[in-house]
Amino acid sequence: MKNERLSEPLSFKRILLTIDADDPNSSINAFRYAVTLAKDYEIELRIVSVLEDDDVNIFDAMTPGKVDRKEDDVNRTVEDYVKVARKAGADNVRGMSVGMGDVDDVILDQVIPKYKPDLIVCGSDTADASHRVPGAVGLRIAKRANVSVIVVR
Amino acid sequence: MKNERLSEPLSFKRILLTIDADDPNSSINAFRYAVTLAKDYEIELRIVSVLEDDDVNIFDAMTPGKVDRKEDDVNRTVEDYVKVARKAGADNVRGMSVGMGDVDDVILDQVIPKYKPDLIVCGSDTADASHRVPGAVGLRIAKRANVSVIVVR
Repeated sequence: MKNERLSEPLSFKRILLTIDADDPNSSINAFRYAVTLAKDYEIELRIVSVLEDDDVNIFDAMTPGKVDRKEDDVNRTVEDYVKVARKAGADNVRGMSVGMGDVDDVILDQVIPKYKPDLIVCGSDTADASHRVPGAVGLRIAKRANVSVIVVR
Repeated sequence: MKNERLSEPLSFKRILLTIDADDPNSSINAFRYAVTLAKDYEIELRIVSVLEDDDVNIFDAMTPGKVDRKEDDVNRTVEDYVKVARKAGADNVRGMSVGMGDVDDVILDQVIPKYKPDLIVCGSDTADASHRVPGAVGLRIAKRANVSVIVVR
């Protein structure tokens, strides 16, 4: 026990919350925990939701404006969460718009380098989820990113 | 956004911290975060470290008292962490003794049913680790247990 760092408190400064717009129940506790931390420690919270490739079928892709509308829906969902977070007392909270793609790749390649969170908060799929790869996005990200990750159930 | 639960704060009540006695650097930030939470929210913290099968070779197993001594070492390490945690201001902290085995199985089959944590805090292997299955114990547990898990890096 020589390590003096052990006695130093550790808290996070920049939280990234990933929301699954298709499986809102999976995000309830993750949202609540992220907002609680953001409020209690007065830290930044950024909320993101990725429109998954899988959610856009070939017919959507061929219908003019359909993908844009799906992206708008996702952004609106994020903005709704931002409002609830502010109302609950988290002052420094914003949504983040990202492109469509594989959730893991978008978070790892676009969101983390841009926002540089030190904690990623995510939920875990419920029975409602319809993903190709079930489970927690965060677990998969945690394997590949050098950031702390919490899966809230 | 009809869900009224979204506005309710969420914090944990019973933290389980898993320590890798063989790779202490991997546990520094996990320890610091667990102690910070335990202190700030005045909640229970239980610290556990599992003696892995892999750490006991055939010669150890055949030498009388050798496995017992290794278990004693692990328990002493846990008690050292408990002391540091108390000194850092976490009042409700204790170590937990467990048998030897596969870390995931011991945590899932013995520790979680007994202690019933609502958050498991763990670190992530450093280059010092010598495990058969590298990575974060917590990630593997998070796949199988219905408990929130944080991997602190």
